[in-house]
Amino acid sequence: MSGKGKRAAGAEVAAMNKKKLKGTEEILAKVRRLAERVKAEPEVQKSLAELNLPHACREVVDKDADAVLGEVETAILMVAASILRGEGFTYTLPNRSKGNQLYVPELDRIVLKDSMSHRAFANTATCRKAVITTRILQLVHELCRKRIHVTKRDLFYTDVKLFEDQGNSDAILDDLACMLGCTRSSLHVVASEKGVVVGRLTFREDGDQIDCRRMGVGGKAIPPNIDKVDSIQSDALFILLVEKDAAFMRLAEDRFYNQFPCIIITAKGQPDVATRLFLKKLKQTLRIPVLALVDSDPYGLKILSVYMKGSMNMSYDSSNLTTPDIKWLGVRPSDLDRFNIPQQCRLPMTDEDLKTGRKLLEEEFVKANPEWVKELEIMVTTKVKAEIQALSSFGFQYLSHQYLPLKLQEGDWI
Amino acid sequence: MSGKGKRAAGAEVAAMNKKKLKGTEEILAKVRRLAERVKAEPEVQKSLAELNLPHACREVVDKDADAVLGEVETAILMVAASILRGEGFTYTLPNRSKGNQLYVPELDRIVLKDSMSHRAFANTATCRKAVITTRILQLVHELCRKRIHVTKRDLFYTDVKLFEDQGNSDAILDDLACMLGCTRSSLHVVASEKGVVVGRLTFREDGDQIDCRRMGVGGKAIPPNIDKVDSIQSDALFILLVEKDAAFMRLAEDRFYNQFPCIIITAKGQPDVATRLFLKKLKQTLRIPVLALVDSDPYGLKILSVYMKGSMNMSYDSSNLTTPDIKWLGVRPSDLDRFNIPQQCRLPMTDEDLKTGRKLLEEEFVKANPEWVKELEIMVTTKVKAEIQALSSFGFQYLSHQYLPLKLQEGDWI
Repeated sequence: MSGKGKRAAGAEVAAMNKKKLKGTEEILAKVRRLAERVKAEPEVQKSLAELNLPHACREVVDKDADAVLGEVETAILMVAASILRGEGFTYTLPNRSKGNQLYVPELDRIVLKDSMSHRAFANTATCRKAVITTRILQLVHELCRKRIHVTKRDLFYTDVKLFEDQGNSDAILDDLACMLGCTRSSLHVVASEKGVVVGRLTFREDGDQIDCRRMGVGGKAIPPNIDKVDSIQSDALFILLVEKDAAFMRLAEDRFYNQFPCIIITAKGQPDVATRLFLKKLKQTLRIPVLALVDSDPYGLKILSVYMKGSMNMSYDSSNLTTPDIKWLGVRPSDLDRFNIPQQCRLPMTDEDLKTGRKLLEEEFVKANPEWVKELEIMVTTKVKAEIQALSSFGFQYLSHQYLPLKLQEGDWI
Repeated sequence: MSGKGKRAAGAEVAAMNKKKLKGTEEILAKVRRLAERVKAEPEVQKSLAELNLPHACREVVDKDADAVLGEVETAILMVAASILRGEGFTYTLPNRSKGNQLYVPELDRIVLKDSMSHRAFANTATCRKAVITTRILQLVHELCRKRIHVTKRDLFYTDVKLFEDQGNSDAILDDLACMLGCTRSSLHVVASEKGVVVGRLTFREDGDQIDCRRMGVGGKAIPPNIDKVDSIQSDALFILLVEKDAAFMRLAEDRFYNQFPCIIITAKGQPDVATRLFLKKLKQTLRIPVLALVDSDPYGLKILSVYMKGSMNMSYDSSNLTTPDIKWLGVRPSDLDRFNIPQQCRLPMTDEDLKTGRKLLEEEFVKANPEWVKELEIMVTTKVKAEIQALSSFGFQYLSHQYLPLKLQEGDWI
């Protein structure tokens, strides 16, 4: 009967927690203070130039269609000039290899160092690449001129004969972004979307006025082309970043954002580029805190790391894709005992999980935050993980009626 | 130079096709006739009862929360009566095994035959199942009482100790749907959503007025709980069902639905339950034709088959999930030559593809349509497949500006 005893104890803790809950305004006090602090922070998006790094580094920025058209035309004019000078048809591009990447702690981002490579047409080793580069420059020019967006796959299919493999056109597209100094989405080549958003947010998308407070339970699909999003407005105190679809649905159906003014976002698992761009844009425009609700396992933290510091592959684009300042609200390893999550809802970590967890302990973005280290150490020591849904063991609406309000009331984020 | 010659020929065909295109009203003439025909069809959703089948069959229907509450209470009262009669604590449920499934050609759906099984508490073989059944009945009762929706995963986590494995709670949930005679979504247990919709459609979702004509490029996420959708209105002539995200984005950005009044839906690959329910509801309410745009490969057809006849696993729920009458607009194997798709965009079929293709030729829903058989035979004979994106080889907007308008103009669906 010890199982029954434990379940009773769990119910007791839940009841006790419920008693602790104050009125909405009191619950919101701590978040309000955090939100004020975030708003008061000087708006410096620290730039590379200000840092005076020993070597020249480069990042890309968002540019509008006209600016990209200008860059493409300049690039071609430079090639023409090079030919006229008798130096031949050659592109000069930043090197994107790992050896040319640099983690800048002051920025908490990966940037590209200054190594450049040359791509000559009259060289058997680079001839094909020079041709593909020219073709993609032309296609990007067309996209920007027509103001339309396509996926990488569409781009590949415009000239399968030349590109042969999508890997070729993808890689050179990334090269071009670096060369032209603009983000990949500025080139009007976008990722397909999978994120959704709901809550205290209105914006304009391609001229349409979108009101995320009136998006039912399904929410609004996050658009693939962030440059068509403007007029962002919100009275939210914070952004709630949710790992999983199911938790998003719970919060949307309970209209969590009506009681606690917030914007709820999920990428349904591994974050895609569109969702990362959208979060970044919201955070930059509204300057409100981002609180994350992820599974208590290494994978949940991995997801946070992609939002916060990006992936190696897109390092040159990191400043546009990353939202460095995300608070880890839950579900944290220490929550399991604190909220008395039943033993049956705690899962043993696999060897793979443990390896990932230990590797995370070595990562800069974890080490930079001693409280994260502490939590992660609890995880790899107890060798136990839990999903957000484990909270359902106290009732379907425990997440929105008790767990999150209590977390907010206590300012329990790290 | 034969490659160049071929590309030039492709461009010529594209130019010729462009010349063939008439004005919007003329293009729409054939679709309008199809739409009128579909609207004029008598509304009979053929029912099982009318068919007078040799054995009693059963299907489930959508029921509202109060009706489900009633069913649950009746089920429990029947158990109580059985106990009072001295016959013990026993549930009687329809058998969902393959042997008890029946394809009904008149309905073009799979239904359950009348074999029943008993689940007694006082029997070691069924005791655990009887307990789980009781617990899930209680949880469903709570959900319907509170009018909230949860996922299967949430349901599992409410009592991990009892369910042990999610497979157990999932299976018994499906048993319950059959036993209570209602769809799984009526039980307020829903699938997570991944579909999106855009175009000439307005509806109400959980009280919010949704206008899919003003959903930017990203579209509206299809809600997981179809029972919260009502007041569906539309002036669309047809529903365009799109397999892939990228094609959806192209059509949404080009506002295809402004010129050709339609509703555009995609489940981004394999259709999920929420998208299938949504399509079904639209088709039933609006009674307009559904035209499908899928890859020209066996997988594209597989996707159509899931929309049209459902999956074995949910056969008991098939009438609520399936939309039998879908026209195959493209990309069809015969399109490849007709639209002169470049050789490089045609991919060789793998052995697995060929096997799937040949298996499809045996399927009832294919055999029922000789034109589908013909197309599929072209596919397995030429051993060539192609993606929707192959159309991009004639320009990024070829799909929305030429291919689809021409298809509509010629009434080229089968």
